[in-house]
Amino acid sequence: MQLFEMKFDKEMENMNLHYHNLVHKLEEITHLSGIMSTLGWDQEVMMPVGAGEARAKQIAALAGIIHDRMIDPALGECLDTLQNQTQSNLGEVERCNIREAKRQYDLETKVPKQLVQELAELSSRGQGIWVNARQENCFAGFAPVLKRFLQLKSEWAQCVSPDMPIYDANIDLFERGTTMNEITPIFEYLKQELIPLIQAIQDRASQPDTSFLRGRFALDRQEALARQISRDIGFDFEQGRIDVSVHPFCGGSHPTDVRITTRYKDSDFIESLYSVIHETGHALYEQGRPHGEMGDLPVAESLTMGIHESQSLFWERMIAQGKPFCAHYFSAFRSTFPEQLQTATVDSFYRAINTCKPDFIRVEADELTYPLHIILRYEIERGLFEGAILVDDLPQTWNDLMHKYLGITPPTDTLGVLQDSHWSGGAFGYFPSYTLGAIYACQFYRTLLREQPDTENAIAAGRFAPIKSWLNENIHRQGRLHTPQELVQRVTGEALNPVYFIDYLKNKYGEIYGLNAN
Amino acid sequence: MQLFEMKFDKEMENMNLHYHNLVHKLEEITHLSGIMSTLGWDQEVMMPVGAGEARAKQIAALAGIIHDRMIDPALGECLDTLQNQTQSNLGEVERCNIREAKRQYDLETKVPKQLVQELAELSSRGQGIWVNARQENCFAGFAPVLKRFLQLKSEWAQCVSPDMPIYDANIDLFERGTTMNEITPIFEYLKQELIPLIQAIQDRASQPDTSFLRGRFALDRQEALARQISRDIGFDFEQGRIDVSVHPFCGGSHPTDVRITTRYKDSDFIESLYSVIHETGHALYEQGRPHGEMGDLPVAESLTMGIHESQSLFWERMIAQGKPFCAHYFSAFRSTFPEQLQTATVDSFYRAINTCKPDFIRVEADELTYPLHIILRYEIERGLFEGAILVDDLPQTWNDLMHKYLGITPPTDTLGVLQDSHWSGGAFGYFPSYTLGAIYACQFYRTLLREQPDTENAIAAGRFAPIKSWLNENIHRQGRLHTPQELVQRVTGEALNPVYFIDYLKNKYGEIYGLNAN
Repeated sequence: MQLFEMKFDKEMENMNLHYHNLVHKLEEITHLSGIMSTLGWDQEVMMPVGAGEARAKQIAALAGIIHDRMIDPALGECLDTLQNQTQSNLGEVERCNIREAKRQYDLETKVPKQLVQELAELSSRGQGIWVNARQENCFAGFAPVLKRFLQLKSEWAQCVSPDMPIYDANIDLFERGTTMNEITPIFEYLKQELIPLIQAIQDRASQPDTSFLRGRFALDRQEALARQISRDIGFDFEQGRIDVSVHPFCGGSHPTDVRITTRYKDSDFIESLYSVIHETGHALYEQGRPHGEMGDLPVAESLTMGIHESQSLFWERMIAQGKPFCAHYFSAFRSTFPEQLQTATVDSFYRAINTCKPDFIRVEADELTYPLHIILRYEIERGLFEGAILVDDLPQTWNDLMHKYLGITPPTDTLGVLQDSHWSGGAFGYFPSYTLGAIYACQFYRTLLREQPDTENAIAAGRFAPIKSWLNENIHRQGRLHTPQELVQRVTGEALNPVYFIDYLKNKYGEIYGLNAN
Repeated sequence: MQLFEMKFDKEMENMNLHYHNLVHKLEEITHLSGIMSTLGWDQEVMMPVGAGEARAKQIAALAGIIHDRMIDPALGECLDTLQNQTQSNLGEVERCNIREAKRQYDLETKVPKQLVQELAELSSRGQGIWVNARQENCFAGFAPVLKRFLQLKSEWAQCVSPDMPIYDANIDLFERGTTMNEITPIFEYLKQELIPLIQAIQDRASQPDTSFLRGRFALDRQEALARQISRDIGFDFEQGRIDVSVHPFCGGSHPTDVRITTRYKDSDFIESLYSVIHETGHALYEQGRPHGEMGDLPVAESLTMGIHESQSLFWERMIAQGKPFCAHYFSAFRSTFPEQLQTATVDSFYRAINTCKPDFIRVEADELTYPLHIILRYEIERGLFEGAILVDDLPQTWNDLMHKYLGITPPTDTLGVLQDSHWSGGAFGYFPSYTLGAIYACQFYRTLLREQPDTENAIAAGRFAPIKSWLNENIHRQGRLHTPQELVQRVTGEALNPVYFIDYLKNKYGEIYGLNAN
């Protein structure tokens, strides 16, 4: 008996030693990756234009070091030892770190170096080719890049997940554990509900008045308003900042250093305001991630792109596009822009920012038409990987689907198949996350209303702290302890359910467009 | 004969291979050090206050990697091979890179790890102790740090330069190749000339009117003015930026990414304006360093602290505090601040910004009294390392010397021996560079006037490009090809000569204070 205990103690001691070793390696990777994020932010926000070449070399040097650390055979051995030993004496945090690190190590090491390099090279070159093709409305110029990417991404999928369908392996990179088997029925249901709903809205003779949203809106006032609202809903300026960049994003190097950006147009204050709210949603997730006692380790990372998007859409759509939020802030909006908003009311403002109108460009789409932009891309990506769609037919396929889903046909490929940057950088399987995020957001919001029935009164009174706390506790602080599937089950008591999303849209837009009265 | 050539070719080929290998290693170090500089800038200018701890870990991770690269035995072997082989087939650039890399490698590897760590730990801890001691006017609190530093810095000097006097080894870190043997006679000459000159100025009954420099100066106007003048004298905003930080500095990661900072006080526009001009002088050196074809290698680095300071003081003092500069910009100053400057003239402005008044604080000193602040520190450091001065006697020694050189006695140690941060961070031997820089600047300016006799007319007309070009060609683009001693000889035709500096000061202040008419 004593001998057994000694053996057990010895094993535990070894285990702790290996785990300690793992933590040390993983934290170094986290720190170096944090530096990379700061460089990325600096490049978009601060870097002088002439510094591009020097910066590229700096980034390449650091990326090389991070890659070497990630594929370090000593890391692999450490992970194997920890995985092969009994893990019963480890907590869920430790097991999560081992599991996540192993997944990352496999992703990095299962792909031959030549393929990694060719993908990196094509991403870099593809971006420039896409920019030109889009400028010149010439899909044929971009088609070879797309074809090569499909080959390389198929090879890549064979290396990392030989047992999965190729498209699933690509999706898995962004939306862990979510497959076509789960997505397709959800998207079919959305199509079935949304296409007739959008059609009914288009058929309404009277559309909301949006004239008071046009005009000139002083940039300094827009900025002050956006910063105030971001602060109100919980952005911590002691652990983050807001700046200006060409494309809005949420970056930063650590939960204590979260940096969001936006751009201000003087012809439109809604776009930048809601963009700041959207990015603040991402930022609250980042600022709310565990750190400190849990260490800067994989368990503390954000979960998936879809869960991240659920947080930005939660604040942008579920909160800020809702009536209570408009009721609370309308007087501030009107006192900021008295000339433009003098004839508007809370109700007319709410209707104006919630109009539905099919258009060609995804990033400008409203919440009703947005899912159809995504579904179109999903079906195209699936078809491309399964061989049912050919690259050369894409412009026609794209336009046919646009007509089928939204009743409009892009006049050019620039406004059609060439509009997004994702494919030129090799991000296939990313698009579904946007709409999965919207569905998650709706389901989370519904649970919040159930658990905190006073929520809409709190919003109308400008009290956002209980909402942020709820998200902190239920989602942000969970890090990567659970899969998205487990998380939504734990938080909402059931699996991802698109019915809530459709109900929400039908109620909201039915009311705005008077469809229910028909 | 043929056999000899084959051997020679073979040797050359090996040489090229080794050199290529060296370049690869050195460029990686340069790139990573550039990242470190960007992080340093970000920390002072952009980083949210709450991110300090995470940033410290990130910097430690990167510093560890850079250190590992610097002491990599493979780098040492590569350098030894290159140094032992015949270098006749290498150009001066290549020989410079080998020489500089070897020097750096020796500096990094000759010191035992334990000593490196103890110095780093003491620097970090010493800073906090000094801040407290200064706040509480308690030298005794700081004395133990100073004593330990003197021990460690002596040990360090024994390791890196066992053949040099200890203080010379410390100076050498900042001001390569310059020793007490060179500095002491220069400083003795300065004392001999400056002490009576300053005394004569103090004895004058009438002092310049500076009342119009007091008032309220709107910060946005100060900033616009500073940016305009920085641009006028040659700062390239496509390869740099100007921001605000607590202490002004010149940072950045590369000649194409040079970042200067300043701070604006609404009670004083001269301080921040001349601080921007000073930092622009540093920045022009950085932007003018060789890169591109020469690679990001040691040969392209700036030379010494003294030469760097010569560039900032060149623009701040020789140009911007001169009459032609005041003549050119005075109307812009007056139209920017019409209320305050309405009674001023070019001449009264010139006199007001060139007053001489002994005071306790070095960083606020004018160009006449500044050298005596430096000489005092130089003599104290020398005495400490040579054992002629004891740490415990420092407050008294400091005050005695202040009285002897400037005729004033600091009422507290906070305004005396505790005022500078250098010693708390372990930077002994740094101070002389400030005044060497001033002497270099004056000698360079004299040569410029000889070679381009139209210079002062050009300044008065706002044409600064010929000056910048002259500095670019003669100093900035030389990188580290020559020692400071060689450089000043090449540029001015003689060794560093403080007579020009003294002549300049005597003429200038003699005229301003009417001493020559006595």
